[in-house]
Amino acid sequence: MADKLTLHEDPRSGNCYKIRLTAALLGVPLGRRRYDIMKGETRTAEFLSLVNPNGRIPVLEIACPDGVRFLPESNAACWFLAAGSSLIPDRRFAQADVLRWMFFEQYNHEPNIAALRFWLAFIGEANLSAAQRAAIPAKQVAGEDALAVMDRHLAEQHAAGRGWFVGAALSLADVALYAYTHVAEAGGFRLRDHRHICAWLERVAATPGYIAMA
Amino acid sequence: MADKLTLHEDPRSGNCYKIRLTAALLGVPLGRRRYDIMKGETRTAEFLSLVNPNGRIPVLEIACPDGVRFLPESNAACWFLAAGSSLIPDRRFAQADVLRWMFFEQYNHEPNIAALRFWLAFIGEANLSAAQRAAIPAKQVAGEDALAVMDRHLAEQHAAGRGWFVGAALSLADVALYAYTHVAEAGGFRLRDHRHICAWLERVAATPGYIAMA
Repeated sequence: MADKLTLHEDPRSGNCYKIRLTAALLGVPLGRRRYDIMKGETRTAEFLSLVNPNGRIPVLEIACPDGVRFLPESNAACWFLAAGSSLIPDRRFAQADVLRWMFFEQYNHEPNIAALRFWLAFIGEANLSAAQRAAIPAKQVAGEDALAVMDRHLAEQHAAGRGWFVGAALSLADVALYAYTHVAEAGGFRLRDHRHICAWLERVAATPGYIAMA
Repeated sequence: MADKLTLHEDPRSGNCYKIRLTAALLGVPLGRRRYDIMKGETRTAEFLSLVNPNGRIPVLEIACPDGVRFLPESNAACWFLAAGSSLIPDRRFAQADVLRWMFFEQYNHEPNIAALRFWLAFIGEANLSAAQRAAIPAKQVAGEDALAVMDRHLAEQHAAGRGWFVGAALSLADVALYAYTHVAEAGGFRLRDHRHICAWLERVAATPGYIAMA
């Protein structure tokens, strides 16, 4: 890959870590530019006009001889990096099934599990708005539901002799779900209630090329 | 395609419509099995064990000589249907950019614009929980932000002589975003404030093979 890749990120974000983990598993060099989302550094006029009109990180910057392009959305950036690799299966159903878990992650998992981690471990419960505080119980239930769906699926995979979310090998589905699951206890979730998740977290961390989040 | 395809759906759901629209644009036959989510028909023990442990529709059922498989998540089902078609670009950046908008749709658009439509047009404001009512203002702001990001992007595309979200042709990015955008007024959003969105909605509806939601 001749492109020069730079990740616009906040190192505390699991969405950003996903992209670094994907690059590390693939052995792809990745530059990093850090922002502090707590200081609004992704809402400046320059960031909105140049990097991401949605005012969010991560964004993958791809510089090639034709010019510079910016790719927001963590799972889209992982897809770009992993194109043609074993992290994206070729077969039609398996490829769609990887995306199934990546959309599950962004819809059912991240808005609950990552949001509670951010609110409780970074903002602090005392500093939350009334609407945020009112949303905590529903996010606790929905996050627990997401973990239960994951644990049940991993149990079924285990019974079939497979250790990963899709098929018999690590894929982007595992990378996407790993990012916020492995730090879910910072949001008040009890991972030890989910033994198949715990065993899977260990398998991901033992994969060649793995890097930790911190 | 020799597979027999059946969509498990609620016809009022934009997430289900996405899949029917994708199949229609591709000329792919699609059976339909209807559920009423208001009556909890996707939370029965049978549905959870057989169709989707996450208790949600849409789910695409794919029956082939090897057996029957179920694919939850609307955008993953669209991806399965559109594999190898012009709705998914081959080029690496463009393909990831289509996914960028599909993840944006599930993260920034659907949880705000579709949720307010569901709450206000189907459940009714008087029947909402206190937590739902407390969440309305934030969803109005976030939904409006999502529409503004879309309108601005379409304006930039228009200035470059392109009428679609990615590149110069209709893709799954347009299909995914169309589903809940074209009925956003049922959630209280004013589409006429976004003229590039309005023109794009007309282009989608004029595409050969297009079917309406109702």
